[in-house]
Amino acid sequence: MSKQQIGVVGMAVMGKNLALNIESRGYTVSIYNRTNSRTEEVMEEHGDKQLVPTYSIQEFVDSLEKPRKILLMVKAGDATDKTIQSLLPHLDEGDILIDGGNTFFKDTMRRNEELANSGINFIGTGVSGGEEGALKGPAIMPGGQREAYELVAPILEQIAAKAEDGEPCVTYIGPNGAGHYVKMAHNGIEYGDMQLIAESYDLLTKLLGLSVEECATIFSDWNEGELDSYLIEITADILTRKDEETGKPIVDVILDAAGNKGTGKWTSQSALDLGVPLPLITESVFARYISAMKEERVVASKAIKGMDLPRFEGNQKEFIQKIREALYFSKIMSYAQGFAQLRVASETFNWDLKYGEIAKIFRAGCIIRAKFLQKITDAYDKQPDLQNLLLDDYFNDITSRYQKSVREVVAVAVQAGVPVPTFSSAIAYYDSYRSENLPANIIQAQRDYFGAHTYERKDKEGIFHYSWYE
Amino acid sequence: MSKQQIGVVGMAVMGKNLALNIESRGYTVSIYNRTNSRTEEVMEEHGDKQLVPTYSIQEFVDSLEKPRKILLMVKAGDATDKTIQSLLPHLDEGDILIDGGNTFFKDTMRRNEELANSGINFIGTGVSGGEEGALKGPAIMPGGQREAYELVAPILEQIAAKAEDGEPCVTYIGPNGAGHYVKMAHNGIEYGDMQLIAESYDLLTKLLGLSVEECATIFSDWNEGELDSYLIEITADILTRKDEETGKPIVDVILDAAGNKGTGKWTSQSALDLGVPLPLITESVFARYISAMKEERVVASKAIKGMDLPRFEGNQKEFIQKIREALYFSKIMSYAQGFAQLRVASETFNWDLKYGEIAKIFRAGCIIRAKFLQKITDAYDKQPDLQNLLLDDYFNDITSRYQKSVREVVAVAVQAGVPVPTFSSAIAYYDSYRSENLPANIIQAQRDYFGAHTYERKDKEGIFHYSWYE
Repeated sequence: MSKQQIGVVGMAVMGKNLALNIESRGYTVSIYNRTNSRTEEVMEEHGDKQLVPTYSIQEFVDSLEKPRKILLMVKAGDATDKTIQSLLPHLDEGDILIDGGNTFFKDTMRRNEELANSGINFIGTGVSGGEEGALKGPAIMPGGQREAYELVAPILEQIAAKAEDGEPCVTYIGPNGAGHYVKMAHNGIEYGDMQLIAESYDLLTKLLGLSVEECATIFSDWNEGELDSYLIEITADILTRKDEETGKPIVDVILDAAGNKGTGKWTSQSALDLGVPLPLITESVFARYISAMKEERVVASKAIKGMDLPRFEGNQKEFIQKIREALYFSKIMSYAQGFAQLRVASETFNWDLKYGEIAKIFRAGCIIRAKFLQKITDAYDKQPDLQNLLLDDYFNDITSRYQKSVREVVAVAVQAGVPVPTFSSAIAYYDSYRSENLPANIIQAQRDYFGAHTYERKDKEGIFHYSWYE
Repeated sequence: MSKQQIGVVGMAVMGKNLALNIESRGYTVSIYNRTNSRTEEVMEEHGDKQLVPTYSIQEFVDSLEKPRKILLMVKAGDATDKTIQSLLPHLDEGDILIDGGNTFFKDTMRRNEELANSGINFIGTGVSGGEEGALKGPAIMPGGQREAYELVAPILEQIAAKAEDGEPCVTYIGPNGAGHYVKMAHNGIEYGDMQLIAESYDLLTKLLGLSVEECATIFSDWNEGELDSYLIEITADILTRKDEETGKPIVDVILDAAGNKGTGKWTSQSALDLGVPLPLITESVFARYISAMKEERVVASKAIKGMDLPRFEGNQKEFIQKIREALYFSKIMSYAQGFAQLRVASETFNWDLKYGEIAKIFRAGCIIRAKFLQKITDAYDKQPDLQNLLLDDYFNDITSRYQKSVREVVAVAVQAGVPVPTFSSAIAYYDSYRSENLPANIIQAQRDYFGAHTYERKDKEGIFHYSWYE
């Protein structure tokens, strides 16, 4: 019996769609699912495809060409460990396991090391693009042994999304957990992008009093310019959709309580561990948490003596343009923070990340795909060791020109009572980053005063302590 | 030979000072340090005290009354585990270990459980107040077995700081890690308080152009009113101090690069895990991180085309008052967030925390001691299950009155280019919390669009998915 070129474990929607994607490129694919009925379902739906169903781990593993290439698409966490454990006794040295789940990067680091001891290659890969992306072409961020990556690269390059210039949205990210780390950072950036869009919408509707339909047009316009991106595009589309039942715009029916799957949280927690400032993404995680407290907010909205929204008195058309500029400015702050985090992670974990390559593979397939990612690639092409995107000419120029708008939008919003946690965090980051002097001297003095934590001086090297109690 | 009533392991400054504090209340104290020379030093310095030096673990343990009460004042982490392991073979059932280090609460939970299996009681206690506090009276936050706490309560009550009404600043916090959790949250709040003071100072100097001396007077004035607190008091004092070498105000000499010991980071990370919005404290952690990037900021300050500080044109005296109100408003937001975090932690870990009692023991001894903590105690006395401090009448009234000031201060600062990450985060939290409707409906629509994550509706129960692709 001829062997299949690759196997996929886990036939939930992402696993199934990736299997179909791989099959559609001319590969033969074995599939396996813990519950056989699910495998049967998939075969009933897709009996015309070159998918080979298997109904035991043994059968699955035996059905694959060596070195075996096995894509795991199971729930991140314990389920992944259990699946690996069940496969392990059947594998041979040189086989390649590829975890395509949303796995925490430290788990991937651990598994990569443990499996390497058994001679098994382990690739942890980010896969972004949702269900549609999985089927038609996701952005893929693989980390692990480079030599193992080379063996699966032809498949990954074929199933990956293609950028406008035809380049596949996949590249070797780095050793062990690098791929899952980059995917995590991607998701954190996604949280920021989504919150920025939400705040923009809030200003358009609450402050300017625009209708959902008017907002749809605005986002659609914005998608023609430098904000051109998947998330702006789908927002424009979303705003045109009606609820079948009530006939209202669907966004007016959807409860304003945002869920999350934890990857934004991980991104913030990692930044906190690495000592990297990541305020914008973190504010967007917290904004989801506050949104989820819907009942408490309803109570608070009645109990708290806030203020009523004043009528907007300025030029509406001009202000819409300012919101657009504030959004682009803030988006740049978010990416500057996110890529600075990647730089510190790369140094900390010895990953030798290529930031320009990473921005490149984000250009298509994934949720944060956007025209402006090319600007990030350009920046790193010019200067591979760039410390912060804000120091690149393009980003320096554009943020310098747009700063006036974001300042005005934040000032107006804050005085009107419309919450803009990420817009205001963006300008605070910009102003902090470009400050030669911050008031942290006060903090250092306090720490030395109550805890003898010592301080450095501006005028000479060394560690000093002041005799506060003398 | 008569036995001592309590033993202290670890003769670094905190351990030594606590031992001296205990001794000063009439207790006999055995002391032990891993390196004997340190013990000898302590004895040379304090030979007149009822301290009994011991030079081996065996000798130390044998010197103590049963059930033994042993205070561990060693470095948090591995050193604590090693010390416990070295003590364990010499202990008897019912002995009480008290970890007074800045230990991560999950380590305390683990140790409490492990040691309970050996019949040893384990109390993890927060101790706040720095070196001076340790010697003269710290705030103490013990968590662990209640029956063990009762046995050491007389000592802890005597060594603790006393509030103005004479009450000792110690109370049983809750089981296992509760004490260290509350200490961690205390430290997070401390980060927020310090950053708020730093931003106020930055506005006074950069925006209003005031001198260090003028700022000293302002903080001193502020300390007479509702901001009355240790941190405001020492800030006023700090601003009067001169560098001996240059004659300049010491704050002008101290490098603006803030250090940290990680407890603020833990607080933010825990809030992220618990799903609690804690933006203000988290912004203050990130503000320290940005401050620490001093060299990069110096480069950025030259490279980035920001804007020059405009001259402040308003009424200076009035604006100083507005900064004061903005500071108090923001401080309340920080405590509202911190106490909401305690509430969720208490529910998550089954600690049954008494929030009013916790605020009470913060009134003296610890770094965040402040007059306004009485207001928090009052709020929880009135309503022990209060969801958020902002819903209490006092805090509702005062924040309602002061919101105009914080809005104006943030608007002016943002337009002037002075970074105010925590002030702006405070008003964003206030406006989010009191919003019946937030734009998270947009986020939910996006998540359902690209990931089929489903959403809830405003008008009825259930989980829904929209057919975006039809």
